[in-house]
Amino acid sequence: MTQLSIQTLAMYIGGTIDTADQARLEDSIHGVNKIEDAGEGEVTFLANAKYARFAETTHAACIIVDHDFQPPTGLRSVLIRVAQPQQAFLKLVQYFEARYRTSIQTTSGFRHPTAVVADSARVDATASIGAHVIVSNGCSIGAGAALHSGVVLYDNVSIGEGSVLHANVVCYDGTRIGARCLIHAGTVLGADGFGFAERTDGSFEKIPQIGTVVIEDDVEIGANCTIDRAALGSTVIEQGVKLDNLIHIAHNAVLGEHTAIAAQTGVSGSTRIGKRNRIAGQVGFVGHISTSDNVVVLAQSGVSKSLDNKGVYFGSPAKSHADALKQEAALRQLPQLLKEFRALKTELENLKAQQQSSS
Amino acid sequence: MTQLSIQTLAMYIGGTIDTADQARLEDSIHGVNKIEDAGEGEVTFLANAKYARFAETTHAACIIVDHDFQPPTGLRSVLIRVAQPQQAFLKLVQYFEARYRTSIQTTSGFRHPTAVVADSARVDATASIGAHVIVSNGCSIGAGAALHSGVVLYDNVSIGEGSVLHANVVCYDGTRIGARCLIHAGTVLGADGFGFAERTDGSFEKIPQIGTVVIEDDVEIGANCTIDRAALGSTVIEQGVKLDNLIHIAHNAVLGEHTAIAAQTGVSGSTRIGKRNRIAGQVGFVGHISTSDNVVVLAQSGVSKSLDNKGVYFGSPAKSHADALKQEAALRQLPQLLKEFRALKTELENLKAQQQSSS
Amino acid sequence: MTQLSIQTLAMYIGGTIDTADQARLEDSIHGVNKIEDAGEGEVTFLANAKYARFAETTHAACIIVDHDFQPPTGLRSVLIRVAQPQQAFLKLVQYFEARYRTSIQTTSGFRHPTAVVADSARVDATASIGAHVIVSNGCSIGAGAALHSGVVLYDNVSIGEGSVLHANVVCYDGTRIGARCLIHAGTVLGADGFGFAERTDGSFEKIPQIGTVVIEDDVEIGANCTIDRAALGSTVIEQGVKLDNLIHIAHNAVLGEHTAIAAQTGVSGSTRIGKRNRIAGQVGFVGHISTSDNVVVLAQSGVSKSLDNKGVYFGSPAKSHADALKQEAALRQLPQLLKEFRALKTELENLKAQQQSSS
Repeated sequence: MTQLSIQTLAMYIGGTIDTADQARLEDSIHGVNKIEDAGEGEVTFLANAKYARFAETTHAACIIVDHDFQPPTGLRSVLIRVAQPQQAFLKLVQYFEARYRTSIQTTSGFRHPTAVVADSARVDATASIGAHVIVSNGCSIGAGAALHSGVVLYDNVSIGEGSVLHANVVCYDGTRIGARCLIHAGTVLGADGFGFAERTDGSFEKIPQIGTVVIEDDVEIGANCTIDRAALGSTVIEQGVKLDNLIHIAHNAVLGEHTAIAAQTGVSGSTRIGKRNRIAGQVGFVGHISTSDNVVVLAQSGVSKSLDNKGVYFGSPAKSHADALKQEAALRQLPQLLKEFRALKTELENLKAQQQSSS
Repeated sequence: MTQLSIQTLAMYIGGTIDTADQARLEDSIHGVNKIEDAGEGEVTFLANAKYARFAETTHAACIIVDHDFQPPTGLRSVLIRVAQPQQAFLKLVQYFEARYRTSIQTTSGFRHPTAVVADSARVDATASIGAHVIVSNGCSIGAGAALHSGVVLYDNVSIGEGSVLHANVVCYDGTRIGARCLIHAGTVLGADGFGFAERTDGSFEKIPQIGTVVIEDDVEIGANCTIDRAALGSTVIEQGVKLDNLIHIAHNAVLGEHTAIAAQTGVSGSTRIGKRNRIAGQVGFVGHISTSDNVVVLAQSGVSKSLDNKGVYFGSPAKSHADALKQEAALRQLPQLLKEFRALKTELENLKAQQQSSS
Repeated sequence: MTQLSIQTLAMYIGGTIDTADQARLEDSIHGVNKIEDAGEGEVTFLANAKYARFAETTHAACIIVDHDFQPPTGLRSVLIRVAQPQQAFLKLVQYFEARYRTSIQTTSGFRHPTAVVADSARVDATASIGAHVIVSNGCSIGAGAALHSGVVLYDNVSIGEGSVLHANVVCYDGTRIGARCLIHAGTVLGADGFGFAERTDGSFEKIPQIGTVVIEDDVEIGANCTIDRAALGSTVIEQGVKLDNLIHIAHNAVLGEHTAIAAQTGVSGSTRIGKRNRIAGQVGFVGHISTSDNVVVLAQSGVSKSLDNKGVYFGSPAKSHADALKQEAALRQLPQLLKEFRALKTELENLKAQQQSSS
């Protein structure tokens, strides 16, 4: 476990130590945490007056504060004073994150003896291959790429420079992954698309799915997602796309660059999502539609038609967010409306009766 | 395969055998089943008159019945008479369940030679480690815990006493699992939370996710779930929580003790679910909200605001179940209302016309 | 990589080559593709006049066309003329698909040395077992079946003739899979059903789940699905059923033959889906209901009651599609109705006032 003394840490962020007890300068810090949760050996920060009350109760070994911070009476933590506490803290987060990344990844050039790598695979000397990994015929693994334990690559899979596949990711035949991608554990890329021709008796004949999946550069895909291979051609995840967990992308779908999709959303076959879309969780898209660039779709929406203009959409079926809100508000008034309507009908009947009797 | 003779089984449940054919007392029983499905070698029971007709047709080797049961003419099964057939049967279910557990788990102290266990890992002598399991640096595995084939533990994972991880479960760096937990196959604990800062050009910068996941004691988690690590601090599943399959729990969420959640539900980041909540399937919770203790949320609901009072909620957006039912009932009347409204308008026009002509 | 020369390919589909450059007859073809995407070494086809414009720009090595096709000026591809281009192309798709299947599957009789196969397992001599596969006690694997890398079979699992389990599929104790099934990567069959008895303090006691899962013949199941074992008896997927990805089937559910279900749908406990149902994506079924044969349920529906008649259903809660459309149309008019209703009320008040003043 990488550790820093408080003294070294203060130097690293260019801060001034403020403590009565000089012996503590040698205390070890091994991680970062929120002030309300931080414990021994952890560093935290204070940038928001709302959290100042935690300075008295926190168990953090040290707190990064600004130059004006007034220490409370019961303070136990060492203070490190800097001009901008939040930025200094972020620098530490990245420091410990780098350490964490090193610790979970096999190191550069690592080959675990239990990995099975086909003779015909081209694996860069700086790529690292974890335990029980399978790299099949014709695969190519770029510089600095890392395959964690239990990853299975079928034939002819290519993994770009610096990409990381977490444990038990499966890439079917021909999957292509670009550079600097991060694929989380249990995700399956390139399984057969869901395509069947119905026979007259209602049974099915499989339509061969012989296309592939292309993941461009700088894509992150969450855990236990499924991205199917195309029937013909490619399912494409363009550069910079970010996918959360348990997302389903069907055959021949295309996700435009820098689009982000939250957990449990599904995109049906041949649908094209535009660039920089922001799709919330549990959304569904029917097949063979498209969305414009810069579209926002809110949670649990069901998109049944193409969205040709940028904007915010909501509902099942999805409509403009403004219309959806109007309908929802109207719907809340509907039970009352029904009552009033019945009353009004009676009134009108009375009025008619009166008029007839008076005429 | 563990087996019991009918004679031993009757002794085990304290019952009296009722059969004309004493030779059958030595017949072997190897499992339990429902009376309509039971076959040779299986024991079943009859506690409900509704199922009595199956006594004549069942292929069960023996049936547990009460003292008053009148055997039908065509009965082929041996009868075992007890005071409370259902309770006696449950005792047998637990007996065979224990056998089943033994058969699928590696036995106490087992180490499959293909498992990869880091030197720095502390594995209790009574824990069992299946084939192709990875236990990385700094892990600790408690007494009687069992890791099935293909489980991958990254660095510094701790597994409490008696917990069972089924095949291909993945625990990222630092995941902590308490005692007597049961995690089903393919579940991923501790993958990165979904956190990105948007750049001005619409592309994303990853926010490091360096917190962890804490699973307290007596938690059961279904198959292919994903529970993400916190950005900072911990995602927490409190004691006694039960999760079904394909559930997504985002970074920094907290599930209160003894809460149960059905399949395919998602909980967004930093949301806190109270104690003893009962959440149905395919429900979604937005981020940064909370629910009270003892809340019930019905299937496919979308919870977009905190639920501050216990009670039953339904709908997307979720409202009190009573309100949701009223709206749904009103909605069913809406097409008719529209027709009647148009008729009423016409009537009113007529009335006005009449009034004007008469005045 | 299997390849065909253009000459051989033309013979294979019984076509006539039409090119000015005889040297190209020896060019190698290694795959099929759509005309707009096809590149070097790929064959495509033209059957629809709408796509004829791509003939000029495609990089395909050759195009299958009919006898009347007029080549454009800039054509670079070799033409192969046949009576029915689409059918000839499908024959090639199947040819390359067979090649693809061979390449990703281990070959007949293959045993990877890292596979762990119990002595008591019966594995047909023609079955193939990939790297790091686990086959536990009492399993039986039929002729020609293939288990890809990382598949885990617990005790007493049976796999029928010709069935293929993709990487990291997990089958718990006693799972039975019929002939010619295709199970995609990461799917978990036979995990415990979600069954608990609530104690008076709101905590749970597990109800043992000791039934099993039965998958009949010719079933295809997508990636990362979960099909739970029954509490007692069996969860049954009848012959010919096709399931997409990330589907959840709960304990004791039954899916009738030749039913197809799209991604992310969930079926709750003991629910029986009829034969030849067509269920769209993200649908939910509550427990203990049934559907008739030939039922269609549209996307994101929530089925809360048995559907006793064939037909098309939609909505949450699901109703007949016709009623759902009427309600949706009415709902769109509701905000306007509310306005008009208020206007009408005012008018009626005026009318009453007039009448009173005039009487």
